[in-house]
Amino acid sequence: MSTHYFDDVQVGERFTSAPYTLDRESIIAFAQQFDVQAFHLEHAAANESVFGGLAASGWHTAAVAMRLFTTGPLQFVGGAVGLGVDELRWPVAVRAGDSVRLETEILGARPSQSKPTHGILRIRNVLTNQNGEVVLSYSANAMVQRRPNGTA
Amino acid sequence: MSTHYFDDVQVGERFTSAPYTLDRESIIAFAQQFDVQAFHLEHAAANESVFGGLAASGWHTAAVAMRLFTTGPLQFVGGAVGLGVDELRWPVAVRAGDSVRLETEILGARPSQSKPTHGILRIRNVLTNQNGEVVLSYSANAMVQRRPNGTA
Repeated sequence: MSTHYFDDVQVGERFTSAPYTLDRESIIAFAQQFDVQAFHLEHAAANESVFGGLAASGWHTAAVAMRLFTTGPLQFVGGAVGLGVDELRWPVAVRAGDSVRLETEILGARPSQSKPTHGILRIRNVLTNQNGEVVLSYSANAMVQRRPNGTA
Repeated sequence: MSTHYFDDVQVGERFTSAPYTLDRESIIAFAQQFDVQAFHLEHAAANESVFGGLAASGWHTAAVAMRLFTTGPLQFVGGAVGLGVDELRWPVAVRAGDSVRLETEILGARPSQSKPTHGILRIRNVLTNQNGEVVLSYSANAMVQRRPNGTA
């Protein structure tokens, strides 16, 4: 695992995380805390719902994507501050036992106008399951540190 | 707390949740599981960061908004299935001890083309802190059940 500055990444570069498996207990625990709807909480009601079975909260899936982003191959010195997210979608439900993997692509890079020590990266995050189906996708702007002058 | 069908809400209606307080322990616990960046984990590193102190993960804030949505005054028979979220923003950081409140506005309503038993609501969710500052906002499409024929 290496740490990056703004200046170290190129538009078009892609980074792929390790896989991560969501189990039934974690799906239910997240829902009990943050998304108390029956289709995220118990199998009986979930079977009757549009999901046709227990499904992870979309916000749980998004949080898992962030876990894979912050523990994966693309890490930034001083961290990456999310400024905003667009077009957050959940095309396929995440089920207990699914193993997901995050791919991050650098869509754009520009210096920050307000903070000359930082740059803004436009990234696209796509989470896929073990069958190659996209379960979550979004684009985001993240503020990261520029390499200090005189370092390499 | 009442439960709603698609047909029960009007465009322009607003619903306000109870307040919810985020404490230091929950901010750190969420970050340890899902967003392992120093400014969400420990005060010393957070003080040196662009946040100038410990700040909740934006995905934690979003999960809290969902908690307030699913436990608040606007609940739907059979639940609300999130189809997508746009323009997710975090204009002000959430700090330990902050008390937040969710306001949901109905922006639009249309029958589902693929599922005649359901409708699609366009909603705007805005989370504000105890000082009235917006800490999170987004627009979303949610699929909810239509009132069955012959019921009132």
